[in-house]
Amino acid sequence: MSPRNKVAILGGPPIFNTPLNIVRPRFPQDEIIFDRFKAALRSGQVTNNSPWVVEFEAQLSKYLDVPTLNFCNGQAALLAMMKAADIEGKEVIVPSFTFSATPHAVRWCGGIPIFADIKNDGSLTIDPEDVERKISSKTAAIMGVCPYGIAADYEALHDIGKRHGIKVYFDSAPAFGTKVDGKLVGGFGDAQIFSFHATKAFSTMEGGCVCSNDKAFMERVKNIRNFGLMANGDCEEPGFNGKMPEIAALIGIEQLKTFHEAAAVRRQAVARIRKGLENIPGLTVAQAPANQEPIWLYLPVIVDAAQYGLNRDQVAAVFEKENLFVRKYYSPPCHHLTTYKQAGEVLPHTETAAYNVVALPVYNDMTEDECDGIVQAFVDAHRSAAQIAELRI
Amino acid sequence: MSPRNKVAILGGPPIFNTPLNIVRPRFPQDEIIFDRFKAALRSGQVTNNSPWVVEFEAQLSKYLDVPTLNFCNGQAALLAMMKAADIEGKEVIVPSFTFSATPHAVRWCGGIPIFADIKNDGSLTIDPEDVERKISSKTAAIMGVCPYGIAADYEALHDIGKRHGIKVYFDSAPAFGTKVDGKLVGGFGDAQIFSFHATKAFSTMEGGCVCSNDKAFMERVKNIRNFGLMANGDCEEPGFNGKMPEIAALIGIEQLKTFHEAAAVRRQAVARIRKGLENIPGLTVAQAPANQEPIWLYLPVIVDAAQYGLNRDQVAAVFEKENLFVRKYYSPPCHHLTTYKQAGEVLPHTETAAYNVVALPVYNDMTEDECDGIVQAFVDAHRSAAQIAELRI
Repeated sequence: MSPRNKVAILGGPPIFNTPLNIVRPRFPQDEIIFDRFKAALRSGQVTNNSPWVVEFEAQLSKYLDVPTLNFCNGQAALLAMMKAADIEGKEVIVPSFTFSATPHAVRWCGGIPIFADIKNDGSLTIDPEDVERKISSKTAAIMGVCPYGIAADYEALHDIGKRHGIKVYFDSAPAFGTKVDGKLVGGFGDAQIFSFHATKAFSTMEGGCVCSNDKAFMERVKNIRNFGLMANGDCEEPGFNGKMPEIAALIGIEQLKTFHEAAAVRRQAVARIRKGLENIPGLTVAQAPANQEPIWLYLPVIVDAAQYGLNRDQVAAVFEKENLFVRKYYSPPCHHLTTYKQAGEVLPHTETAAYNVVALPVYNDMTEDECDGIVQAFVDAHRSAAQIAELRI
Repeated sequence: MSPRNKVAILGGPPIFNTPLNIVRPRFPQDEIIFDRFKAALRSGQVTNNSPWVVEFEAQLSKYLDVPTLNFCNGQAALLAMMKAADIEGKEVIVPSFTFSATPHAVRWCGGIPIFADIKNDGSLTIDPEDVERKISSKTAAIMGVCPYGIAADYEALHDIGKRHGIKVYFDSAPAFGTKVDGKLVGGFGDAQIFSFHATKAFSTMEGGCVCSNDKAFMERVKNIRNFGLMANGDCEEPGFNGKMPEIAALIGIEQLKTFHEAAAVRRQAVARIRKGLENIPGLTVAQAPANQEPIWLYLPVIVDAAQYGLNRDQVAAVFEKENLFVRKYYSPPCHHLTTYKQAGEVLPHTETAAYNVVALPVYNDMTEDECDGIVQAFVDAHRSAAQIAELRI
């Protein structure tokens, strides 16, 4: 990239000629998918545990090394997991720094989400110490989250759960492909869910799964996925339709074949952007513990306006003119949403992150030029911060 | 068909050489679907109100003559409708003679399902008189059901709702295509849902929709479908992911083009089977009011064992040997499921129907031979009833 006299918002040419959107979903185009799909349409077996859904489930169980049940989407997986967790009328401790889907699942199952703060170590994950402070006689479970694919502190949470005799679940919607100690996550806690939504690194268009080594729990999850119907025709608790359609499984099976390559590209992209940003004042790039290799659904950067010269909202507006579309995930934090707001609740690290974060795109096929363009956007905006600030955007 | 000496269960040849399953889903195979799907996969726009989902929604709204919102499946549509109905802690009167999905949706939304009996007029639909008896100070709504596609008594329920100041909803999961007074149903009551599941006459593999002329209600349903997120980024109530994927819409758009033909075939098949069964003692074929043209997802027949010579379970077992696979929908009735059972609750017409019904298959491409084979199965089983009864099946 040639140096510019001006950033785009001040009249210069944009860094990117075509928009860099927050996601760039990539789907396999192999004829095998369409051949199998056509056969499924001919046979009429397009859902209800159709053959390729069953096959995909077997492949996932092997891939993740934990029994896995497919769902039509990640939220359905989360609802089934929470339903089987027996939380009605009880409290579930969750982070506030997460997509609202997390506390929603607790509410749908009749539970009360109790928000814990996140750590101040750059991982943006739920703080086990604050979790422990928030345990009460009504606590039924802890639900950790893996924001952006950064795994929550599994060991510390597991230890707390054990000491207090409460279950530990993980909403790992964005974390399919993340490794801890060299091993793909999936068997964390009492159960764990993933989303395969189009925005995710591993996608079946819409889809998701529940993973658990607890046989009885998974039997219940399976029944809940099919309206709560049991093999004997009776029903002991209401379920819903959480079934994955055949076509999603067909896509997933092909995705799985090349996913390790996509994961490598994502991690290289993050390393390159991280290196590029390291000397710019006022930017804190999220950092996972050393034993982790997150899948990096996005790369979150916390902007310290005083040092960087522009605040998060200004950065996002400036970048938009560069054709770089970032997101303010997760902002507002859940405890500031009307449905969860409680007077006086303060979660300092969550609030700092939520109101200063920009989530940068990370793609399965990201190029080095794209990484460098993102770095340039930060460099140039910082250099022109004073002028940009005068625009009062 | 040539006359047989014996029914299959007594050693004769089966009526059907290939199994007549309870459903025979038919999906379009047009290249336009695959061309559009491939383009969607290339673009990455495979969900989240993708272009063909929006188009399909517009087509459905026009077809049904009521604003319509797509969902990933019928149960998601039902959940969203009940959520927007504000029933938390309140009672909703529903039939017990329905798929358990109906009361489940009430429970998921924090409501209490109160079961009303069905009419004794052969329609198998909720009895408005019993509904009125069950209204209490806690009643928030009535949810009628259109079993097998037979429309509930819309006018009577609407009248009750009006007099008591309570809302009237319809779980019309199987009824897409049913006509009342010559008009496609869709705008019944305060809101109505349909399922597009593979088992349904109109199918998008998995899918469903909510229909309502109430603008504010539909705005809420739309937000609920997307996690409860509002345009301003806030959230006033928990939603979930109810989004229909692009491929379901692509299938639906093609299905819609020929659906009137499928509907005609289904109605002709039902008329032919009905005529064939009319002189067999002990069989009551479900009958819709004269102003209706149901889509007939299945054709329910109530078997009076004393007159017919075999009970419903025997009939189903005998038919299985003829390669004719019927279902015992909806049995057990919801008020006999463990999760809903209450000591002493008796719904006489519901129980008679539930424990004596066989649901016969009706296909979009049913042949006259198939209809005649079904009739023959009933004729032959009745003729051999005494011998079959000796088998003690």
